Amino acid sequence: MTTAPRRIEPRTLKGFRDYPPALAIAREELMERARAVYRSYGYVPIDTPALEYTEILLGKGGEEADKQLFRFEDAGGRDVALRFDLTVPFARFAAQHVGSLGTPFKRYHLAPVWRGENPQRGRFREFVQCDFDTIGTTSNAADVEVSLVIADLLPALGFERFTVRVNNRKLLNGLLDSLGLADRAGPVLRALDKLPKVGREAVVAEMGEVAGVERDRAERVLGLVSLEGTNAEVLDRIEAESGGADWAAAGLRDLRQLLAVADAVGVPEGRIRVDLSIARGLDYYTGTVYETFLDELPGIGSVCSGGRYDDLASLYTRQVLPGVGASLGLDRLLAAMEQLELLSGVSTAADVLVTQFDAAHLAAYAAAAARLRRAGIGAEVYPDPRKLGAQLGYADKRGFPLALIAGPDELERGVWQLADLRGEGRARHEVSDADLPTRARDLLARSTA
Amino acid sequence: MTTAPRRIEPRTLKGFRDYPPALAIAREELMERARAVYRSYGYVPIDTPALEYTEILLGKGGEEADKQLFRFEDAGGRDVALRFDLTVPFARFAAQHVGSLGTPFKRYHLAPVWRGENPQRGRFREFVQCDFDTIGTTSNAADVEVSLVIADLLPALGFERFTVRVNNRKLLNGLLDSLGLADRAGPVLRALDKLPKVGREAVVAEMGEVAGVERDRAERVLGLVSLEGTNAEVLDRIEAESGGADWAAAGLRDLRQLLAVADAVGVPEGRIRVDLSIARGLDYYTGTVYETFLDELPGIGSVCSGGRYDDLASLYTRQVLPGVGASLGLDRLLAAMEQLELLSGVSTAADVLVTQFDAAHLAAYAAAAARLRRAGIGAEVYPDPRKLGAQLGYADKRGFPLALIAGPDELERGVWQLADLRGEGRARHEVSDADLPTRARDLLARSTA
Repeated sequence: MTTAPRRIEPRTLKGFRDYPPALAIAREELMERARAVYRSYGYVPIDTPALEYTEILLGKGGEEADKQLFRFEDAGGRDVALRFDLTVPFARFAAQHVGSLGTPFKRYHLAPVWRGENPQRGRFREFVQCDFDTIGTTSNAADVEVSLVIADLLPALGFERFTVRVNNRKLLNGLLDSLGLADRAGPVLRALDKLPKVGREAVVAEMGEVAGVERDRAERVLGLVSLEGTNAEVLDRIEAESGGADWAAAGLRDLRQLLAVADAVGVPEGRIRVDLSIARGLDYYTGTVYETFLDELPGIGSVCSGGRYDDLASLYTRQVLPGVGASLGLDRLLAAMEQLELLSGVSTAADVLVTQFDAAHLAAYAAAAARLRRAGIGAEVYPDPRKLGAQLGYADKRGFPLALIAGPDELERGVWQLADLRGEGRARHEVSDADLPTRARDLLARSTA
Repeated sequence: MTTAPRRIEPRTLKGFRDYPPALAIAREELMERARAVYRSYGYVPIDTPALEYTEILLGKGGEEADKQLFRFEDAGGRDVALRFDLTVPFARFAAQHVGSLGTPFKRYHLAPVWRGENPQRGRFREFVQCDFDTIGTTSNAADVEVSLVIADLLPALGFERFTVRVNNRKLLNGLLDSLGLADRAGPVLRALDKLPKVGREAVVAEMGEVAGVERDRAERVLGLVSLEGTNAEVLDRIEAESGGADWAAAGLRDLRQLLAVADAVGVPEGRIRVDLSIARGLDYYTGTVYETFLDELPGIGSVCSGGRYDDLASLYTRQVLPGVGASLGLDRLLAAMEQLELLSGVSTAADVLVTQFDAAHLAAYAAAAARLRRAGIGAEVYPDPRKLGAQLGYADKRGFPLALIAGPDELERGVWQLADLRGEGRARHEVSDADLPTRARDLLARSTA
């Protein structure tokens, strides 16, 4: 009598997910495109360990982040945790390595992070982020560049309709200062950040309750923050409101330069918009701040956010490292695209399926595939000489555009049938061995009928 | 009186490392090239969570792997662990998804794994592996393909001098069977695996002690395993030794087909070698097995190993999933290249540094950079109008081949100085705005003087 083996239920942890091919192919493509944009601006990749000493991470992302840490004691008795973002590891990295790397230092970091938050639709406990920053300079040129990168990034990822909303914390801080509210900037800005969600009256109420700001001053803040119009109109109104006062000058100058340079390099009108309601809650930001919204996916919030900060790594080093950067929520974007069925669903990485008629001729099939590969065309050889219908069914399911077929007659004559699997016709073309790569390339260049 | 903030020592965990730009750039390039090879054969990417239920992982990689698990209880009281390889998560993934994905199924998985082993030179507790497998077929075509992939992969990663050593476990198992040692295959093969390290006599001794195999039969096993000569000579000798017996027929047929197809697709003579001493200790393998050695880096052992197995996911599903695949130790390869100073050391991802003379002209500098990018040439704008020498020093340190310079005179005349930073001469070329991309491309196409 034999006992059946105990089977283990194959399952992922709550809040985690597998990436099957159709999704993983789309993600790799997004990553490759994002990398290409970062690199084209001179940002270079770095990587850091998934695990850090807990003391490096704890207290850096607020109470919420602390609670969500995957934290444990390792076999060596160390208190360790999985990183919850890429900013804190970058601060630690910069403190350790900036001496040898020198400044300015521009890096991108494309890697998973882990947060034990309650899973929601489209949000998981493990997700890839994609940060880019320039540190070691206070120059507004770096701030300008962040907006140019975002303006290049989104089209590269397939989104043409989006808006980069920019503000400068110096304007908000200057305004609060001029209103005698400098000491209450934190709670006032946090209240302000809720404006799109809760509306004007609730923000005024919160400013009163939490920060003791009376209606009059709250309305002045909201008036400035709610300015509408073209970028030039908004900036001119602020200048007028400030009466040319110092509190507004630096912020206005930086934003004007950002808009002028964006215009000079050809960023389409309207892609970058001054929006004084963008406060970016974190006390951390001190200059330009960015949020990016997709017109097609308004529900997912900002997909690329960031800003300028005065000192990245003060917790780990005495060296002062000002910088500016932003973070692309790549997996969140992907999850949204998936929900909206914006992904192609293709689950092949090769363009040609080489069918097998007869295992004895594997060398001929493999040689044809190798010839296609050398010409830069991906080719997969079906492993078994099953019925042609089954092999073509496999090709259809995965989305191969072309199939290569050769039965005894073709093998003897040294020719191939190249079948176009797209559209209705499924046209077959007889091609010689020598012409195979050229003909395949020509067919692939054609769009579907 | 203010107290100095408590600083946290910036450090990574024992056995973990940061990837600074020069290393991260090299790693990204290796990854991109590996992906391109896998994709060209029709392998598609998948991803799985870094964390799994511990019961999924435990006992699958042997006692050693169990001891090295980063295992803990999560906030929800689940017993979880970081994956220690990509095979076990793939087995779990296949059990869960193969019904919807269908077979054959070819995947690659390029991702970090974690093992709490004692750190050694070039070995870390977190490292990237790169697995590729075809499951759902017993066809030898899939085995053949694995050897072709490895033969393409290594040159794509920059290694021209390497050997893929192949064997077929059916030959070893058949031989042991014919010698009446089938019931002792495990200990005999494990002893055999130590041959290169401990030598012939020690292997004979171990076979005697552990498996009760007397010298006579141990010598027959070793005689077959130590055969030298061309692939044809080795295979012919085995055939002769077996006297045409069944135990050798299937293994010989599969290996001969592998070699014939490799020859037909143009794999250079000698890159794939039959080596019967390759046993791949794991009981798991049942057919073709592979190990890959770099002639330049003999010390690091096999860089790409794998084999055929009868059933990938029997612990998680009743569906029988035979398959074949291999794993590239990408980070181990990178660490070895680093130690041997085979990496370029370049730490820029862009080719042109656009220097700034004057912050007021940022729009002109940014527009020139944008023009280069649109032509596919990476361009970084230095953020501050520091002295030219300092900006060019930055370019040199990072390895930029070209710098773009424009002072008041050039800005007025609408021209640029394009400086070649390679070699001794540091030649400067005056180019017009319109010619900039073409001239930069021409210069980049030239190798250093």
